[in-house]
Amino acid sequence: MSKKRLLTGDRPTGSQLHLGHYVGSLANRVRLQDEYETYILIADLHMLTTKNTKEDINAVRVNAVELVKDYLAVGIDPAKTTIYLQSAIHAVYEMNLFFEMLVTVPRLSRLPSLKDMARNAHLAEMPFGLLGYPVLQAADILMPRAHVVPVGKDNEAHVEITREIARRFNYLYGEVFPEPASIIEPTLIGIDGKAKMSKSLNNAIFLNDDPKTVEKKVHSMYTDPNRIHANIPGRVEGNPVFIYHDIFNPNKEEVEDLKARYRAGKVGDVEVKQKLARALNNFLDPIRERRAQVEADKGLAEQVIYEGTVKANKVAEETLLAMKKAMGLTGLWNKISRKGRDRLKRLEQAGENGS
Amino acid sequence: MSKKRLLTGDRPTGSQLHLGHYVGSLANRVRLQDEYETYILIADLHMLTTKNTKEDINAVRVNAVELVKDYLAVGIDPAKTTIYLQSAIHAVYEMNLFFEMLVTVPRLSRLPSLKDMARNAHLAEMPFGLLGYPVLQAADILMPRAHVVPVGKDNEAHVEITREIARRFNYLYGEVFPEPASIIEPTLIGIDGKAKMSKSLNNAIFLNDDPKTVEKKVHSMYTDPNRIHANIPGRVEGNPVFIYHDIFNPNKEEVEDLKARYRAGKVGDVEVKQKLARALNNFLDPIRERRAQVEADKGLAEQVIYEGTVKANKVAEETLLAMKKAMGLTGLWNKISRKGRDRLKRLEQAGENGS
Repeated sequence: MSKKRLLTGDRPTGSQLHLGHYVGSLANRVRLQDEYETYILIADLHMLTTKNTKEDINAVRVNAVELVKDYLAVGIDPAKTTIYLQSAIHAVYEMNLFFEMLVTVPRLSRLPSLKDMARNAHLAEMPFGLLGYPVLQAADILMPRAHVVPVGKDNEAHVEITREIARRFNYLYGEVFPEPASIIEPTLIGIDGKAKMSKSLNNAIFLNDDPKTVEKKVHSMYTDPNRIHANIPGRVEGNPVFIYHDIFNPNKEEVEDLKARYRAGKVGDVEVKQKLARALNNFLDPIRERRAQVEADKGLAEQVIYEGTVKANKVAEETLLAMKKAMGLTGLWNKISRKGRDRLKRLEQAGENGS
Repeated sequence: MSKKRLLTGDRPTGSQLHLGHYVGSLANRVRLQDEYETYILIADLHMLTTKNTKEDINAVRVNAVELVKDYLAVGIDPAKTTIYLQSAIHAVYEMNLFFEMLVTVPRLSRLPSLKDMARNAHLAEMPFGLLGYPVLQAADILMPRAHVVPVGKDNEAHVEITREIARRFNYLYGEVFPEPASIIEPTLIGIDGKAKMSKSLNNAIFLNDDPKTVEKKVHSMYTDPNRIHANIPGRVEGNPVFIYHDIFNPNKEEVEDLKARYRAGKVGDVEVKQKLARALNNFLDPIRERRAQVEADKGLAEQVIYEGTVKANKVAEETLLAMKKAMGLTGLWNKISRKGRDRLKRLEQAGENGS
């Protein structure tokens, strides 16, 4: 049997990838691309729901290419993962319109995420397209008939809508879509101890930070605030420095030793942080190296998007055809055009087609 | 300079055309097709906003073909008028999605017409697609970059939304669309004297009623209710019988004579109605004849839809390309794919492309 399919994606809004993205989504993608036939969409149409000026669109090309360079740098493999540009997939627009008939306005209006998005984009009134954002997401997810969708916790409600749309479609027209399951992505605490690493909170370590910057950021990290001296016993649980050590330091013995001494008040923050900075830089070094290789290989990122989009279009056309067959729209057009062409042929044969 | 363009359409819901349709839209279309490059869409996607079961879709083929037979019977000329199936126009789905970003939910929610449509279709909650119906209409109208749109009075507000979308698009991305003007279609009073002829009100004379049925319906017509005897002076103004005489009886002398005698109480209803029935049958006879010819010409209606749809698709692709160029989406994809293909070519030339 063929592999199950996974779909996920990012907006090409130019936000640099950081360790939070790595822990939340990139690591998962790299790991899961062996298990699942993986699709990553560069969601430029989603971007249009809140940012749709000519300048916004103009920035997509560079942002998309930078995004893909990061994908390749962290180990996403285009042989296993199809990376594609959403706006270039014709079938998605058609799927979107059909799905818009299968969900109600009150259902979409109840989603708090959309109101947050409108507020964050400083929109006085909800654009119709933004209210329909979960429907377009459903079209994305159901395009490759995905079985699993890794999403942030705040997007889980959108995947629920996708499941409802799939169910409604299957009920009305016959079984075409699997009901996709969500994989909730973990979040990474910020270097300031705030719940989530994020560029806008200014608490992020970026994948393309140089070693010195990483060291500086680590040394500014929030730790146990009660530990004003190295000889005061400290708290390891929930402490960002140790959370990062657990994730990024492969030397488990060193981590356990640091934890034990930290709890006993027998290690200074400086040592804990120096070792973390080293671990992070060791982790980032091969990513930096691959990123430099990718950077030097002119057109590689574009080729990955180009080939991925060509492939995704094929898959999308297959799905759209299955949908339209189930709905009866293919038969409708085929019958009309066949009868029409038959008459044209008869006219030609009779030599009457002088128009 | 080329002709200006006109767009209009009907839902293929199987409602038989009647004299109200003739007066409201068909006569206009026949008259205006010489002046305008005319497009008539068979709006099966609009139908999906309120009727989207497999059975509804299955009925579209026969309904569309019957509709086109009526068009041809009343004198719509496929050489001047492009008749096409909406669901088969790929670009319209794309245009629809882009336009959804250019209008707000409150703007659409304020339209009373949509609530009426939901109520009439017995829908407990507003489907998202139905709230978006005016956006899809905008895509239809702007597809051929129409200059004029004949609509019923209750749809004028939708054309206003089309103008707003066109304006917003032109403002954001540059001048692509004209702002279409509405032509408000007249309505015809029903045979029962109610404001509007309609199948559901059971007050219609259908284009395919036979002569006897027309006679019977005319003899049942509502006239001046105060005129219980032929020698009582009657009211001509607002009297359905005389409204019909004015529209369908080409013998103006006869009509003036009847009106004068009616006002003077010197003619019976029977004579007025007999003459109206004769006039209506004279009017309907050539339509019946052409309809029989069309009926006998197998595949003609299908050919008209087939050729119209092929042509409309070409026009739609031109418009979509102009839109995407203005938005910068064409450039985005062209640059990525060119760079991607360039690298592929280099790999091939270097003989390295062994994958």
